Amino acid sequence: MPSQATCPSFDRAFFEDLERLFAWRRDVRRFKAQPLEEGVLERLITLTAFSPSVGYSQPTRFVRVNDRARRSAVIVEYERCNAAAARYAGERRATYDALKLAGLREAPMHLAAFVDTTTSRGRGLGRHSMPEMLEYSTVLAVHTLWLAARARGIGVGWVSIVDPDTIARILDVPQGWKLVAYLCIGYPEEEHLDRELARTGWESATDEATAILER
Amino acid sequence: MPSQATCPSFDRAFFEDLERLFAWRRDVRRFKAQPLEEGVLERLITLTAFSPSVGYSQPTRFVRVNDRARRSAVIVEYERCNAAAARYAGERRATYDALKLAGLREAPMHLAAFVDTTTSRGRGLGRHSMPEMLEYSTVLAVHTLWLAARARGIGVGWVSIVDPDTIARILDVPQGWKLVAYLCIGYPEEEHLDRELARTGWESATDEATAILER
Repeated sequence: MPSQATCPSFDRAFFEDLERLFAWRRDVRRFKAQPLEEGVLERLITLTAFSPSVGYSQPTRFVRVNDRARRSAVIVEYERCNAAAARYAGERRATYDALKLAGLREAPMHLAAFVDTTTSRGRGLGRHSMPEMLEYSTVLAVHTLWLAARARGIGVGWVSIVDPDTIARILDVPQGWKLVAYLCIGYPEEEHLDRELARTGWESATDEATAILER
Repeated sequence: MPSQATCPSFDRAFFEDLERLFAWRRDVRRFKAQPLEEGVLERLITLTAFSPSVGYSQPTRFVRVNDRARRSAVIVEYERCNAAAARYAGERRATYDALKLAGLREAPMHLAAFVDTTTSRGRGLGRHSMPEMLEYSTVLAVHTLWLAARARGIGVGWVSIVDPDTIARILDVPQGWKLVAYLCIGYPEEEHLDRELARTGWESATDEATAILER
């Protein structure tokens, strides 16, 4: 393949579909039992190799969690952290308790994304003054997988109400792998254009996030 | 808009274009002088509001850097960090020195993305056991902007060879805003399907990043 080439131009229809994809992405917590087709996960993960990684360090490591006992241990860990996090008073507490924050029991697939903090790949390039770039690279890989999944109608939910070290222990991963995302994956049971947390009144949209400060 | 709706189904052509977009994204370091059209940045930033944010906290804050003196100070900071990072010996050092790692001088636009670590939005949901989720949310917003830009033929380069605190000082942003990404934005001067760091022999692809560990 020649090094220099012509970037394909993406047409207006593609751009509109891309905007629709962003809008429909959602953090999915309600899944059908229907499993993913054979080979689909592998295809999605292959696409993550295109995602940006600092110094081309490619630090993301994926773990598919099939074992019942390990899945149960993850659910116990989620429930422990959720109980600890539910420090809200009155009505807010009632709203919190009514939220469905994860689909760990229903999702046909559990996938964990770790960052290998020990990798020598990239030789430290771009990480000297911002060491956090390594785990940012894994966040970018997860987002790539998420968007690619959604484009195929597959839902992804990111469960952050767990302790990363505990998950690493439960999954018995190599030393130095840090959990970045524990993902539930499957076909969504229902579709919403609005966010669960907006719909339930937990939080509303703010212009702050799209304002531009001029300097 | 009704809460529950039917997710659009994306066709095969869209999926193929999306894969092409991932493949062509690139970290761009060579820019034409041509400025972005009026309103394009605003549109791209509007799209970042669709990106996932923990607890719907929407913590990303964008700063457009127009001032010549501030841009120069950022370049000085980049050069300082780059000199400090260039601790390689022999041939590796020669390769490093030959790399073009940023397009700060040529890029018509500088945009910084900060995470507001002081925001009370989201009320801590999803951040109790993984406080890093807040800055991950900003990483996701940056990636959304990056992909949307590329779909319009606009290139983005992420400069991480800077100290976040120094950039925050140069840009005089509110206390508690932490730099996540300093971005160069503009039309690419050349197009490559392969990565700069692969092309120059700095780092090669590895299967490690797309392997699946079964547990």
